[in-house]
Amino acid sequence: MQQLQQFIATYVPQIEEHMRGEISRLQGPESIKESMQYSLDAGGKRVRPLYVLAVLSLFEQDVTKGLPIASAIEMMHTYSLIHDDLPCMDNDDFRRGKPTNHKVYGEDVAVLAGDALNSLCFGIIARMDAPAQVKIDLITLLSDTAGAEGMVGGQVLDMEGEKRSLNLQELERVHVNKTGALLRFSIESSAILAQADEQTRQALVNYAHHIGLAFQIQDDILDIEGTTEQLGKTAGKDVVSEKSTYPALLTLQGAKEKLNDHFEQAIAALQHVSADTTLLQQFAAYIVKRTN
Amino acid sequence: MQQLQQFIATYVPQIEEHMRGEISRLQGPESIKESMQYSLDAGGKRVRPLYVLAVLSLFEQDVTKGLPIASAIEMMHTYSLIHDDLPCMDNDDFRRGKPTNHKVYGEDVAVLAGDALNSLCFGIIARMDAPAQVKIDLITLLSDTAGAEGMVGGQVLDMEGEKRSLNLQELERVHVNKTGALLRFSIESSAILAQADEQTRQALVNYAHHIGLAFQIQDDILDIEGTTEQLGKTAGKDVVSEKSTYPALLTLQGAKEKLNDHFEQAIAALQHVSADTTLLQQFAAYIVKRTN
Repeated sequence: MQQLQQFIATYVPQIEEHMRGEISRLQGPESIKESMQYSLDAGGKRVRPLYVLAVLSLFEQDVTKGLPIASAIEMMHTYSLIHDDLPCMDNDDFRRGKPTNHKVYGEDVAVLAGDALNSLCFGIIARMDAPAQVKIDLITLLSDTAGAEGMVGGQVLDMEGEKRSLNLQELERVHVNKTGALLRFSIESSAILAQADEQTRQALVNYAHHIGLAFQIQDDILDIEGTTEQLGKTAGKDVVSEKSTYPALLTLQGAKEKLNDHFEQAIAALQHVSADTTLLQQFAAYIVKRTN
Repeated sequence: MQQLQQFIATYVPQIEEHMRGEISRLQGPESIKESMQYSLDAGGKRVRPLYVLAVLSLFEQDVTKGLPIASAIEMMHTYSLIHDDLPCMDNDDFRRGKPTNHKVYGEDVAVLAGDALNSLCFGIIARMDAPAQVKIDLITLLSDTAGAEGMVGGQVLDMEGEKRSLNLQELERVHVNKTGALLRFSIESSAILAQADEQTRQALVNYAHHIGLAFQIQDDILDIEGTTEQLGKTAGKDVVSEKSTYPALLTLQGAKEKLNDHFEQAIAALQHVSADTTLLQQFAAYIVKRTN
């Protein structure tokens, strides 16, 4: 895992600096910029922006060319967390151990900070240094993966699923959209930017599919096995709320087997990429073994 | 005004049909599509999308080429209304005489419907039939005008202004952003699509600036002089809440003079456009004389 650890140590600071630059250049009121920056600062593992750069490294390109895409996808993810935490949604007071955006800035500002981040993502990609048609392809994919056909659609399915028990196929549909869509964008976007051939792009999309599901299964497992301190959010919440999860449907052991299946299929997908995929293999292992 | 009335009668149905097509093609859950469509159906004057098409008609282009931009800007406007009406924002139960989105679908779905519309706008432009660089310019402008530097920034300034009295300059800054930004996009976008020369584009931006302020001043006047029935929302709300408005700062008579000033400056700006601007002149008159 040394290669991945070095990669993370090198690029997380660059991603965070790039995001700070995008916020600070805005001409808008300081209060909204502060609220946007607060949630971007709240940390997390930066899985999505790191994937953008990790995939780009396959193509022997200057990895920093992907920083605008990396910032955009982390901002899209962050806006969704701000809105998810609102009292009318999940009503969470803490996220990653820090008070949630609306607890600090008020609900009205939190709604607007999320809205502004959502709109900003597209401008960041539109302004980046890349051929116009490549940027159009990225924006089309980002719009699809973020909106009703992707992440937002997944959240709606998730809310509907709280009212009844889901079967495995329905649960997968929730997660392919809710978590999977942005992860897929992270991974596919760099194939678009690098103008990779169709076989490579498809292999990466397959890898992303299995990583997205593995990510969610590990989330469900951690809710049972992790501690509140490790997670930075209340552990055991899913069990209390009787939410449809992989362990609930498959038993904890069954969920772990499913996790391993997706890990193996993600690794297998990489065999169709003719480049050194060590970093992406390590990334997959990191996703399934993480403790927070 | 006959030319404008005929234009409205011809194109409002086409704009609405285009928006319906954009929603119905989405693969997402029916419930979120229904909520998005509900607020798009809630009507209104369709000022922004009509402006897109009206400006395009200056350049003797096929006006329907602008329909994707028209849909995108009306959707952006609609998402902002859905979020504005939320209990944590303006807490409005009715909009244009119909129950607001969250009253029908719940606050959680209303937040997500707004989010999905916000992200969708950019995809609609990315997919339209136009040169890639033109679409990138449109997306850059839309991102700027919708986000913290534009509409959302204006809403934040407006909220901050509710806590104290604004002076005229501050009030203008609120409205240039809150209402003006999207109107400017509507008008400037067609100059971009038609690849108009710099002088024409600048003249249209000036026209848009004055139209945006005139629109807001007439809104303030209507809050005093209009009836709840005409407006489809509670009249007299600004006076009750002691909000900073043009009549509050300038007296009703002073506000009407200011409105006329902006009308005349909008008309004057059109003199720098070498085309038949009858439609845009009529549109300006319609904005300042409207009763709802």
